[in-house]
Amino acid sequence: MDNQKNLEELKSLLGEVSDLNNANAVLGWDQATYMPSGGAPARGRQMATLATVAQEKLINPKIGHLLDDLQKYEESQPFDSDDASYIRVARRDYERALKIPPAFLGELNEHGANSYQAWTEARPANDFSKVRPNLEKTLDLSRQLADFFPGYEHIADPLIDFADYGMKAASIRTLFADLRANLVPIVKAITSQAPADDSCLRKHYPEAQQAEFGADVVRQYGYDFNRGRIDRTPHPFMTSFSIGDVRITTRVKEDFLGELLFSNLHEAGHAMYEQGNDSAYEGGPLAGGTSAGVHESQSRLWENVVGRSRGFWEHFLPKLQAKFPEQLKGVSLDTFHAAINKVEKSLIRTDADEVTYNLHVMVRLDFELQLLEGSLSIRDLPEAWHERYEKDLGVTAPSDSDGVLQDVHWYGGIIGGSFQGYTLGNIMSALFYNEALKAHPEIPNEMKQGRFDILHNWLKENIYRPARKYTAPELVRRVTGNDLTIEPYIQYLKTKYGELYSL
Amino acid sequence: MDNQKNLEELKSLLGEVSDLNNANAVLGWDQATYMPSGGAPARGRQMATLATVAQEKLINPKIGHLLDDLQKYEESQPFDSDDASYIRVARRDYERALKIPPAFLGELNEHGANSYQAWTEARPANDFSKVRPNLEKTLDLSRQLADFFPGYEHIADPLIDFADYGMKAASIRTLFADLRANLVPIVKAITSQAPADDSCLRKHYPEAQQAEFGADVVRQYGYDFNRGRIDRTPHPFMTSFSIGDVRITTRVKEDFLGELLFSNLHEAGHAMYEQGNDSAYEGGPLAGGTSAGVHESQSRLWENVVGRSRGFWEHFLPKLQAKFPEQLKGVSLDTFHAAINKVEKSLIRTDADEVTYNLHVMVRLDFELQLLEGSLSIRDLPEAWHERYEKDLGVTAPSDSDGVLQDVHWYGGIIGGSFQGYTLGNIMSALFYNEALKAHPEIPNEMKQGRFDILHNWLKENIYRPARKYTAPELVRRVTGNDLTIEPYIQYLKTKYGELYSL
Repeated sequence: MDNQKNLEELKSLLGEVSDLNNANAVLGWDQATYMPSGGAPARGRQMATLATVAQEKLINPKIGHLLDDLQKYEESQPFDSDDASYIRVARRDYERALKIPPAFLGELNEHGANSYQAWTEARPANDFSKVRPNLEKTLDLSRQLADFFPGYEHIADPLIDFADYGMKAASIRTLFADLRANLVPIVKAITSQAPADDSCLRKHYPEAQQAEFGADVVRQYGYDFNRGRIDRTPHPFMTSFSIGDVRITTRVKEDFLGELLFSNLHEAGHAMYEQGNDSAYEGGPLAGGTSAGVHESQSRLWENVVGRSRGFWEHFLPKLQAKFPEQLKGVSLDTFHAAINKVEKSLIRTDADEVTYNLHVMVRLDFELQLLEGSLSIRDLPEAWHERYEKDLGVTAPSDSDGVLQDVHWYGGIIGGSFQGYTLGNIMSALFYNEALKAHPEIPNEMKQGRFDILHNWLKENIYRPARKYTAPELVRRVTGNDLTIEPYIQYLKTKYGELYSL
Repeated sequence: MDNQKNLEELKSLLGEVSDLNNANAVLGWDQATYMPSGGAPARGRQMATLATVAQEKLINPKIGHLLDDLQKYEESQPFDSDDASYIRVARRDYERALKIPPAFLGELNEHGANSYQAWTEARPANDFSKVRPNLEKTLDLSRQLADFFPGYEHIADPLIDFADYGMKAASIRTLFADLRANLVPIVKAITSQAPADDSCLRKHYPEAQQAEFGADVVRQYGYDFNRGRIDRTPHPFMTSFSIGDVRITTRVKEDFLGELLFSNLHEAGHAMYEQGNDSAYEGGPLAGGTSAGVHESQSRLWENVVGRSRGFWEHFLPKLQAKFPEQLKGVSLDTFHAAINKVEKSLIRTDADEVTYNLHVMVRLDFELQLLEGSLSIRDLPEAWHERYEKDLGVTAPSDSDGVLQDVHWYGGIIGGSFQGYTLGNIMSALFYNEALKAHPEIPNEMKQGRFDILHNWLKENIYRPARKYTAPELVRRVTGNDLTIEPYIQYLKTKYGELYSL
């Protein structure tokens, strides 16, 4: 009786927090898509204010009292009931928030907006010095943020925990070392061969038709345009303002067919996760994605496991050829499949193939750990970046634009916990797809007909609908019966690239 | 010493309020431009939350104490000093806000968002019944809002006062009666003649070129695209998120050249007002426009007094003909000038010419007063609308879409105080232009060369920069030396239309 009243009151208070955070996401989307440059200073301040007010509202002691009052009720309910889950997740968010002063969050947010704006100018100008002071402040703020959570083993741990609950610098290092030991021989075996021919992708593909095809495919995936839209930004992203409004952005290159298409497939994967949340979770702490890694598993699943598979293109290549009859005349399925899966040592993470991609992530993780520890300085970062790329990927960047300036993350957020999710996502994309296949062996055949309902529904049921109800480790155990393992991912890579490169 | 500290603290608190309101404006802009339909329910809730939180922050008793502490300082400073003006305007806003419960404002805002959404469907469907329950609630909420300000003569007075400080139902009725007595003979004299030929505007004008030309003209006016942009909405509007980000929207008809062009000129007039605010007022109560009427005076000045003048088209007609050589071949300046100033009794306010426009406004004012008094019901409104249009404008609407559903105002806001500003704006557009001419008789010649610097700078100095520092009545007295009068406006109409129609 009282429990329901308390729960309603808790939901009303946390609904305000969610509204403020979602409003802030609209401001961020606008900043990245349509805002004129003159709007930047005020926008930074406005986003800071919304973040501060949201934090003030979240650390309202009334929320603490309600959570205390509801503890007995929570314990009386099944762990996976909506009510128990709501209280459990709300408590975790609340206790974390209590440790961060609202004014600090405001400062972080305002700094992030200004720093992002500086980055949008510094990258095309290839001028790291324009963002260096910002980045130094970002590092300082990131350390301060970690220090609100004393008792860590590594200073990055609290920041990693924000993004990928349950992970630490040490556990990720172990996981990544294991992965690297498996990847390096595959990369070596592939790159010792002649590179795949991807010239069929590198012709003139007019923007309008690319956009049409790219939208058609994600519609067929199940991305709901009544609850979303696609805009253009320099760096594609997904953002969500409610379960009814989950947007993606993309970018286009008229001389490379892969850019817009795979950006769309990737971001639509993120978006379908949030569009698929249980609608009962709207406007509360259970909505959203449960971790960076799980989120990324969905983008990578739809981008790579599905979107770069041979079966997928059995259906879609003829459609693509109908759209671009000149450019793709006579291109066989094998040629096309090899082109979109070309493995090469490259400069840009977001353009990297599935196999080398994780090597890019490992570079960034190591830098984040070193910067936070203090064993690397921002001043030395651009040079360290170039050295590491030469060593790990065997490539020399012609500029900082294609080096340390290539990723937005550090320039709009914090240093720490920003990148490990990509590789965790790759690992989990194979893990989850494996489980879907076990439950529905007909999925590959469905895909060859350009249909994705069975796969999409399985993902909805097992991953999208529960949203934040389970942490990533809980979700992995529920779905696979085991803890996280890299085996299915390694197996997936070995099978796919073994065939492509006759390893 | 303490005064400066108190003033800083006041500015910091009110800066938060401004940030929340500006963030809400971004949400409103997005709702009208790009939001997918699925986003509507959450958006209504989010906008309500932002409005409620802004109101909570504004009625913070700390603000009241700071205002009390600053009263002596305010009195010691010149009336038109920035500090005294800041405190004076902040106090007026604060005292008004104190009377409105935050939860009420939240409800009003959420209702407005839902009601707006319903209107976007009801108007194309010509289905008043879809919005009738909304409108009944709007009327109820509007009355409640007025009742938070007891002691009024007419229930509309508080609502009129929000938009046009210092005006009341009675004073507007007197002013409008006087205006009507002057307008009706002019309308009669014109409409007894053969209508002007505007067929040159009613050809096929492709959207892209219209948009280019429309953007070029407002750029030449002085609308700053680094601090603004133009998007498309069903109902054009101006909205401002900061002095550095003031956006307009427009709409296009490919079979009517006047639609996009004059929407642009109108909204750019609004926008240049806010772009021209003293930058020191950014993020505080002095920024913005001082009243609906003064705001409208700027849109009407740039749309009509400038944009429909013969001198303006001496410069721009050749440019327009270069853009549309086929459509405008052989069209003389006289023909074009007569076409864009065609006077006729018509159905749609936003399409109405300068002379009959005010008759449309008077219909709406009377309905607002009657609805609020209770002498007219929402149920009877569609029929009353048709009757009144037949009587006052001699036209019969084929549908409610072109009747009671034509204007967004009541469907997204309140009933009361929404329309008088348009006619006050018309009156003041001539008043202010007259004063600019007295100071700079060379303005008409400048305009004939497609330059607007002298006029724009005079407006900036006298109207835009002071922003909300002076109330509308104060501003009119400062600029003209007298109280508001309709004489210059009547004179303007008589001269212009006397020549056009040889009256």
